[in-house]
Amino acid sequence: MTQNTLSTDVLIIGAGPAGLMAGTWMAQTGIKAMIIDKMPCRTQRGHADGIESRTFEILDSFGMADSIWKHANRTIDLSIWNDCESDGIQRQCISNNCTPGLSRFQEATLGQGQIEENFIDFIQESSSVEVKWNSYPVDLNMCEGSDYPVRVTVEMRTSERETSYTVNSKYLIACDGAHSWIRTALGLKLEGDQTDEKWGVIDLIPLTDFPDIRKRCIVKSDYSQLMIIPRERRLVRCYVQLPHEVAAVLWKEVDPALLVNIVKKILSPHTFEASNIEWSTIYTVGQRLCTTLSMYNRVFLAGDAIHTHSPKAGQGMNVSIQDTYNLGWKLASVIKGKAKSSILHTYQTERLQIAIRLIEFDKRMVQGVFQMDSASSVENASSMSNQMQDTLEEENGSASGVTALYKPSCLITRSWDSKGHQLVRPLLPYSKIELAGKLAVGARLPNTQVLFQCDSRPWSLQRVLRSTGEWHLFIFGGDVSINTQMTRVKRLASELSRDETLVNRINQRDHDCVGKISTYLVHCAPRKSVDLMELPKLFIPFDENLGYDYWRVFADEELYSEKRGRAYQQYGIGAEGCTVLVRPDQHVALIGTLDDFAAIELFLGNFMTLV
Amino acid sequence: MTQNTLSTDVLIIGAGPAGLMAGTWMAQTGIKAMIIDKMPCRTQRGHADGIESRTFEILDSFGMADSIWKHANRTIDLSIWNDCESDGIQRQCISNNCTPGLSRFQEATLGQGQIEENFIDFIQESSSVEVKWNSYPVDLNMCEGSDYPVRVTVEMRTSERETSYTVNSKYLIACDGAHSWIRTALGLKLEGDQTDEKWGVIDLIPLTDFPDIRKRCIVKSDYSQLMIIPRERRLVRCYVQLPHEVAAVLWKEVDPALLVNIVKKILSPHTFEASNIEWSTIYTVGQRLCTTLSMYNRVFLAGDAIHTHSPKAGQGMNVSIQDTYNLGWKLASVIKGKAKSSILHTYQTERLQIAIRLIEFDKRMVQGVFQMDSASSVENASSMSNQMQDTLEEENGSASGVTALYKPSCLITRSWDSKGHQLVRPLLPYSKIELAGKLAVGARLPNTQVLFQCDSRPWSLQRVLRSTGEWHLFIFGGDVSINTQMTRVKRLASELSRDETLVNRINQRDHDCVGKISTYLVHCAPRKSVDLMELPKLFIPFDENLGYDYWRVFADEELYSEKRGRAYQQYGIGAEGCTVLVRPDQHVALIGTLDDFAAIELFLGNFMTLV
Repeated sequence: MTQNTLSTDVLIIGAGPAGLMAGTWMAQTGIKAMIIDKMPCRTQRGHADGIESRTFEILDSFGMADSIWKHANRTIDLSIWNDCESDGIQRQCISNNCTPGLSRFQEATLGQGQIEENFIDFIQESSSVEVKWNSYPVDLNMCEGSDYPVRVTVEMRTSERETSYTVNSKYLIACDGAHSWIRTALGLKLEGDQTDEKWGVIDLIPLTDFPDIRKRCIVKSDYSQLMIIPRERRLVRCYVQLPHEVAAVLWKEVDPALLVNIVKKILSPHTFEASNIEWSTIYTVGQRLCTTLSMYNRVFLAGDAIHTHSPKAGQGMNVSIQDTYNLGWKLASVIKGKAKSSILHTYQTERLQIAIRLIEFDKRMVQGVFQMDSASSVENASSMSNQMQDTLEEENGSASGVTALYKPSCLITRSWDSKGHQLVRPLLPYSKIELAGKLAVGARLPNTQVLFQCDSRPWSLQRVLRSTGEWHLFIFGGDVSINTQMTRVKRLASELSRDETLVNRINQRDHDCVGKISTYLVHCAPRKSVDLMELPKLFIPFDENLGYDYWRVFADEELYSEKRGRAYQQYGIGAEGCTVLVRPDQHVALIGTLDDFAAIELFLGNFMTLV
Repeated sequence: MTQNTLSTDVLIIGAGPAGLMAGTWMAQTGIKAMIIDKMPCRTQRGHADGIESRTFEILDSFGMADSIWKHANRTIDLSIWNDCESDGIQRQCISNNCTPGLSRFQEATLGQGQIEENFIDFIQESSSVEVKWNSYPVDLNMCEGSDYPVRVTVEMRTSERETSYTVNSKYLIACDGAHSWIRTALGLKLEGDQTDEKWGVIDLIPLTDFPDIRKRCIVKSDYSQLMIIPRERRLVRCYVQLPHEVAAVLWKEVDPALLVNIVKKILSPHTFEASNIEWSTIYTVGQRLCTTLSMYNRVFLAGDAIHTHSPKAGQGMNVSIQDTYNLGWKLASVIKGKAKSSILHTYQTERLQIAIRLIEFDKRMVQGVFQMDSASSVENASSMSNQMQDTLEEENGSASGVTALYKPSCLITRSWDSKGHQLVRPLLPYSKIELAGKLAVGARLPNTQVLFQCDSRPWSLQRVLRSTGEWHLFIFGGDVSINTQMTRVKRLASELSRDETLVNRINQRDHDCVGKISTYLVHCAPRKSVDLMELPKLFIPFDENLGYDYWRVFADEELYSEKRGRAYQQYGIGAEGCTVLVRPDQHVALIGTLDDFAAIELFLGNFMTLV
């Protein structure tokens, strides 16, 4: 046994989706980090497989969505089947599996291993983050007063050798799953219910004449219940409830052939066999939560370490990725000295509410969809029950992460109406007119289509919001072909360009992206009436080697016969325009008028650090 | 000097776009081929840069479009500037640079080297095709009666060594450019006009306040003329006409700084400097053509070896790629013994007409756009001249390759109306009703959107047409929820499934894709009314390891709130349906009724080989 000491800025325990997302932020921002995992390599088969639209948006902000979207299976239809007295199961209805328009991506399915592969590839492009397999923590100490106060003893065990070393780190992120060693070491617990209802999961290539095998299906027979999830290539995942007599026998001894047999019985009179069984497991339904997400403002828990639930809504991997997506840029900003460490407290408040909602939703999902009285469904044979419909719609909206709304904090502004009621949609002063009636402060900026002013290429505004640690300040300048409006934009630009303003001082700290504020103009004048070069230089920064940066000005207009534009309408922004300040994780921090430059300065002054 | 003899099925001279496209077909179909090129490696900078929509469709059929589309610059606007008496140039108008709706891709620009890189990556994935650099032909002989009748002596020269060897091949493709050694060796010539008008080309990163620098621009000043092509990253290509006094000095001594100076003068009073000049050259405008495209049915010429012209319409690389895209699958089919060698004669007839049109178009382009009287344009200062507009529209349509229409031959059926006039749009028997009024026999199948019957995923029908050497037979079955229509589809399917039919015997020759006929059903019944498993087994082939192939049946229907479907409407197909047989290069070979199975058999019997 050798014993030595390493030091790193961030130690991440667990190389599952939550840990890898944390590592991805560190790689992107150049923060020194180490990820350890007890497994010998990434997930090979099975485990999570659902990717929600919000997760795709996040992956895309690191350039990782394309290849995952290309390989994933997009599930369009949801088909409900029920038992009928005589003839076995019959189709009750087919409906839309995703609510259109919530995101530019849709829910899709792909094995967890392939998603991890993309993260690992991204991380390995950088030199700042290291992944160590076969490694697990055995001791945790906090050393107050040190710059590297978190001390973890790590053991690494392979067939050839066993080593042990100490890692001193500034911060620790525990992504070590439902049985988190770190959580236990901190004296924290998952609390909640565990039922004795058991389900089997099986990934297979089916040989079947069941006609809806490539749709998402919920099948309820007298014998048992089944959910079918079509997957990448010809794979299909089946979730199957174990009938009591089977559950007693099967527990801990997973015989996939028995699971296939249950599916076969449920789908009867259709044929069903498995050609290739890739993976299978059995789980007990339960919803459990740890309400402490961080300790000492140094140790943070994420993913299954703080929330476990049934896998059938395909939420697990998504909420886990979204947990550390929320945390990563904050840590990078603090470690780089760009922001006060107090911003890290927002992780607890922002993500706990999401975890609570996840657990509540999962309960509704299990009850609303799978414990529905099958007799009642026969009565409404042509349509879904309201409860079921509501639950499934919630799955598409709030549960997918696109509607997550973070509460006011040092990183989300607060605004009130004239009666002192808090608003998520700020008003024009002295009016009841909302500045951006379809945006909410605290929610992620939804996508919209705009055109580059310089070359008229259509562009998704969300694609501007790359995850680099930068903040994005959008100036919705209105119709700048009108003189008065152009004057307002020029005044704001000149405020933002003055040497002594905070925005400027923040941007001139160094050349690093983290903590910078990038400014963009989105106008709604006819694009041919605007001369790019006559706009304030703030929007067309010049570099002596690269020339002008022409891609910071957007027009909100339709493009020839293509239906584009309508960004102002989609965001609910009026002729007077507004400013929208967006955090590095794409959540709106502030919506203000074009004239209230002071509000931006005040907000940033609260947490930004100027040396 | 060592001397030895190698043998290969296809020897390709030249590793430019035409040669690499030929090599890509050989790699895809597993045909042994060798590509030689006198250069030490692929193009590094400059040369061609325009990719037309049809070329993207072709690249996509090999899975190569995504990465090229991602890196290329899409050019939306075309901006025309003219000199004004006093103030220098002024913008005359901005219009659409591409005609929407012709293709699912649009014209874009990317350096030739990056496109070659994609081809080379594809070729190197296969083991059947070898690329040899620093190698050129020095001798060509035909050896009649041999299986490998084409004998080429190749010299390979590097700084370290010089070798020479003989390559015996079944076929030779000469893609060795405007100064083709092979063409000269065959005693053939490029014929046509060469003017003394000289143009400079320069790829640079501009430092300029000219506001349309990221649009395609045509700028005519009293001093000279300029075309601006925005490119990938921050690059811009400038084509600039050399004023006579400069042309005399510059010829053969390209000083890029002088070219930049001419651009600067034309764009005055705007500023213009180059930060980085990547590449530059000078050319003389001319249009030349070699009307013999093949000799001995063994040697084929393609690309610049048969047509040279001015580069400004961005056609060169496209027509070259399209030449060998036409040839490659035919060669593979003959070499594999799937088709008679007589099909190779269609290369000459199909591509010569395209080359002739290219040359004619280029003349119109040079005259219509660049030699227009600048006085006349001032009169219509707000709009383009009709001649210019027509030429530019032609550039988007016919010149881009999407409307190429191949004439009847053994590979394109012929049909007549009752008066004996030939039709490209076959009629229903005893009627004047067109079977598919918006498709043309001989043209490439345009794209349309359909849904997979099994999982409702929207799909571009053109994506089914992967370039593998397979033929694709689409059964447009009409509304199969109507009994009589389903009966017709079942009868056709049963004909196609009989052991003794030609289609079946062709498909059972072996497991290779080349020459196979794949069958698909596209119906227009409401998709929820169709039970996939009740369709003829022809459309849901079963494999004992992979299960059913569920992805050969498509529904023509809108998808929830998304605008999809309308394939029947877009193709002009009526309720009675039709069959559409598509060649391996996506061109429609036959349009027939659902009942005229004999026509398909007759057509295939003409050129398919059955051992």
